[in-house]
Amino acid sequence: MSELDALLEANRTFAAGFDHAALPAPPARRVAVLACMDARLDPARFLGLGIGDAHVIRNAGGRATEDAIRSLIISSWLLGTREFAVVHHTDCGMLTFSNEELRARPRTETGADAWGIDFLPFGNLEESVCEDVRRIRSSPFIPQDIPVRGFLYDVRTGLLNEVQVDRQAAA
Amino acid sequence: MSELDALLEANRTFAAGFDHAALPAPPARRVAVLACMDARLDPARFLGLGIGDAHVIRNAGGRATEDAIRSLIISSWLLGTREFAVVHHTDCGMLTFSNEELRARPRTETGADAWGIDFLPFGNLEESVCEDVRRIRSSPFIPQDIPVRGFLYDVRTGLLNEVQVDRQAAA
Repeated sequence: MSELDALLEANRTFAAGFDHAALPAPPARRVAVLACMDARLDPARFLGLGIGDAHVIRNAGGRATEDAIRSLIISSWLLGTREFAVVHHTDCGMLTFSNEELRARPRTETGADAWGIDFLPFGNLEESVCEDVRRIRSSPFIPQDIPVRGFLYDVRTGLLNEVQVDRQAAA
Repeated sequence: MSELDALLEANRTFAAGFDHAALPAPPARRVAVLACMDARLDPARFLGLGIGDAHVIRNAGGRATEDAIRSLIISSWLLGTREFAVVHHTDCGMLTFSNEELRARPRTETGADAWGIDFLPFGNLEESVCEDVRRIRSSPFIPQDIPVRGFLYDVRTGLLNEVQVDRQAAA
């Protein structure tokens, strides 16, 4: 049995006890979270979110890519979220490679040319959070009255630590 | 108090009971899930995932965008995942608008020109799942031996229903 088949079996157990019929699409707590895809992060658990509470957007690094901003536009304009949080984390895989190193691997083994891809690795966690918070804040498509705050999640302690984006900008 | 401040208070409670120190970055179950950001979906809960088990990538619609594929490349090449699942869901917000409708809103209210953005709405759930599964399968950067399967999550029942992508392609 594949791992995914085992997960599907777990889903049948989950569905048998499911009791959240007919919740509306707009998030009840009007929050959207952009976080890394890392397996050690479970945003719903570490923020105490219930079913229907908040949008959760995730990608490698928790980066404010065009696609993440597409999602945040839909989240705010169409579904009414009013606060955004960006969450990167300690021991992130994005700290461990360069674009050149990752581009070389699929190229060697598949022959496909990955040189055009920016994998968005970073060298400093606080800086990457600041960069992504600022990118969202400066988007002309995000309502200007939405606060965008940045955090580092510590995978050893489970704690979110806020990154002072404005202070760093002034330093 | 903002909703986000309330969530941060919940995080302190979570961290006080946290007991997952020193897990490695590679997902233990070697699975990556691409799902919609919808607030009613909690992939970790509906798949029975524990901390450290699987990558979870999420955006508006659960679409196989360039950014999602960037994340899947990092997931497989760098962090060893070997099975992918694409999860769209019933009652998705992406079924409720056209690009033209969503582009008009920020334009009217902020003056910014959103005409260049493809918000990736869709008209049919099974087709959107098939399209995204095929996009991932056909990427030259995704290892060809990784099975990519597609699912629809029913927000009323909590159940995942598999979409037969190959059968639909042959029909």
